[in-house]
Amino acid sequence: MPERSPLAPASFPSLSDIEGVRLAVGHAGYHYADTRMDLLLAEFVPGTVAVGVTTQSACASPEVEWCRERLPSHNARGLVVSSGNSNAFTGKRGKAAAEMIGAEAARLLGCDLEKILLSATGVIGVPLPAARALNVMETVTAQLGTASFEDAARAISTTDTFPKGAGAAAIIGGARVSIAGIAKGSGMIAPDMATMLGYIFTDARVAPALLHDMLVRANARSFNSITVDGDTSTSDTVLLFATGQTGPLLEKMTDPGAHAFYGALCEICEDLAQQIVRDGEGASKFITIRVSGAVSDSSARKIGMSIANSPLVKTAIAGSDANWGRVVMAVGKAGEPADRDRLSIRFGSVTVAQQGEVVAGYDEAPVAKHLQGDEIDIGVSLGLGDGAARIWTCDLTHGYIIINADYRS
Amino acid sequence: MPERSPLAPASFPSLSDIEGVRLAVGHAGYHYADTRMDLLLAEFVPGTVAVGVTTQSACASPEVEWCRERLPSHNARGLVVSSGNSNAFTGKRGKAAAEMIGAEAARLLGCDLEKILLSATGVIGVPLPAARALNVMETVTAQLGTASFEDAARAISTTDTFPKGAGAAAIIGGARVSIAGIAKGSGMIAPDMATMLGYIFTDARVAPALLHDMLVRANARSFNSITVDGDTSTSDTVLLFATGQTGPLLEKMTDPGAHAFYGALCEICEDLAQQIVRDGEGASKFITIRVSGAVSDSSARKIGMSIANSPLVKTAIAGSDANWGRVVMAVGKAGEPADRDRLSIRFGSVTVAQQGEVVAGYDEAPVAKHLQGDEIDIGVSLGLGDGAARIWTCDLTHGYIIINADYRS
Repeated sequence: MPERSPLAPASFPSLSDIEGVRLAVGHAGYHYADTRMDLLLAEFVPGTVAVGVTTQSACASPEVEWCRERLPSHNARGLVVSSGNSNAFTGKRGKAAAEMIGAEAARLLGCDLEKILLSATGVIGVPLPAARALNVMETVTAQLGTASFEDAARAISTTDTFPKGAGAAAIIGGARVSIAGIAKGSGMIAPDMATMLGYIFTDARVAPALLHDMLVRANARSFNSITVDGDTSTSDTVLLFATGQTGPLLEKMTDPGAHAFYGALCEICEDLAQQIVRDGEGASKFITIRVSGAVSDSSARKIGMSIANSPLVKTAIAGSDANWGRVVMAVGKAGEPADRDRLSIRFGSVTVAQQGEVVAGYDEAPVAKHLQGDEIDIGVSLGLGDGAARIWTCDLTHGYIIINADYRS
Repeated sequence: MPERSPLAPASFPSLSDIEGVRLAVGHAGYHYADTRMDLLLAEFVPGTVAVGVTTQSACASPEVEWCRERLPSHNARGLVVSSGNSNAFTGKRGKAAAEMIGAEAARLLGCDLEKILLSATGVIGVPLPAARALNVMETVTAQLGTASFEDAARAISTTDTFPKGAGAAAIIGGARVSIAGIAKGSGMIAPDMATMLGYIFTDARVAPALLHDMLVRANARSFNSITVDGDTSTSDTVLLFATGQTGPLLEKMTDPGAHAFYGALCEICEDLAQQIVRDGEGASKFITIRVSGAVSDSSARKIGMSIANSPLVKTAIAGSDANWGRVVMAVGKAGEPADRDRLSIRFGSVTVAQQGEVVAGYDEAPVAKHLQGDEIDIGVSLGLGDGAARIWTCDLTHGYIIINADYRS
């Protein structure tokens, strides 16, 4: 992997195995000249419930379309993730490649084709060389159970500078259930979809409709509340697998333990989403933007995203510049209700502007100190209503230009 | 001015005077330590028709609000442009500053306050030091008629690396009328409004309603079809003044000469808009994006802007990388109807992808050669309908980061 992001966590978390899930990784050699693992195979026990959310892109990859077709059955026995080649925009050949890998996985796991889910990430426009996967899948299958979540997180990475994982637990009816998740993503990270690849595994027993509802809600406040560059991938997918090996069945939010499980799920999704931002291409600062007082939550989100995606705000933060004028600009361009004379803006704990102008006697020293750090907190209050949102993003630095003016992704 | 953009025109155009317009520039010392001219005063003969378009920002500056209030009367005797301080988000003090400058201009030109228009551009959040303008406005007024359009273009500039001007003429009823325009802009350039500051002057006689209609239409295909960074200024304004000193009155598009005049106006707006993009912060390449086959013109424009504002597309072009996969991504994220399998993409004259995949036998050599140049042409065909749009933008380079991570604008 390239040099680790300065915002990366100290180490990969310690994640316990999830009963009913077996992992293996292999080297198909899709794209990279090196010999790193680029194929993840996961096997689930019969009866595993699967739910997922995928990109809203109108140019989704064949793997995304594959998942969209199969997810409504809420049933999975296997997952194959290919990294280094997204297989997006590859026409009939790309579709055929996905079908070959899906069929081989079904044969090797001895299950119906409809119970296999697929993902791919990496270069766009080059048909996935399925033969390279087929060469190794039998060997990989023989190794099921040997890979850790960290191995899996590494195998699904592309431009990531560190593997991303998170774990949590919840008590349901006296039983302790576990959740573990992995994700990848660094660039082409943007709102309005399930961002990039994320896979979450639990041994809990949850009814498909409830599990799906929980994932949609957890996704909204995690993966869908981050942005690196405002660019939405053709391959974004988040899948959640519940093997049902532990605890009583959860069917509705009022069941004992359902809130605890949902809380643990949100914790994992938010942790993974933050890790993706912390690995944002070229990122040197992690930025939290809290918008309040908007006319609605959706309006607050649009305003927060307008700030988070503004190149002028992101470069100002990169330069440790308390340039609240650019925040005003980004609020103004969002196309949402805003009243200049009710607006207030905060950096860290210091309100720098309110009621349409700079605060009298505003002392820039503590603000400058906050902006010298690498955890930046921006608050915007609209003074119009109760709508609120919290967005995570990173700054825009020379590192982003270096990575993207040279890398064919 | 900073080092001239590599995309700048060779020189400022030769522009003839416009009868009924007198210009003067002065040094108020709003912001810059140097001694450059930062105040433009224009005087118009009585009866001059004025029309304008302003930013859609919800946080517009007091000068923009001033213009919005006065433009409906379609009448102007004077214009004051302050550069180095936008006076935006400065509360009551900023509003008072605008009022003082407006009142002084009215007194000096001997006209009603309602016939003065104001603009300001530069740093946000610092109340405009009106006293500095008042100190020099009497002297500047005494110099009316001494400044050229080039002097005026320089006086309204901030981070611009070259002064921007364009001229054209049209024959109306046997009379030759002239149009001259100046503009400024380099960063915080984005769609959906009249972008940045532009002032256009003509000696033609045009009825207010027709003149306004022509400006709105010309603006749509010029200033509103460009983007540098997707960031919309709080101060954007384009004003058009017709002194009525030459030729017969134009009242409707069917009048002889109306189309010639509109064509000349479009030419100037498009020329100035291109110059703003060519001076885009850090720009090293001028990019034209042509979208066709969309379900509507408006859908084509959104798709074109999605491509033009994508940091991944802009950095790929900066790196001379024929990365059409990122163009696919930007089409997919636009939120507009698109069918991956009907999409085709062209770089220069070479179609690289069609019907959802790379063209068989695609030769990257001529495409790479095109991308090594500094005039890049990207074509996207959706294959769905007749909607079309043409967007101008520039690439995203280290220069943008250098300018914006350090400059307090």
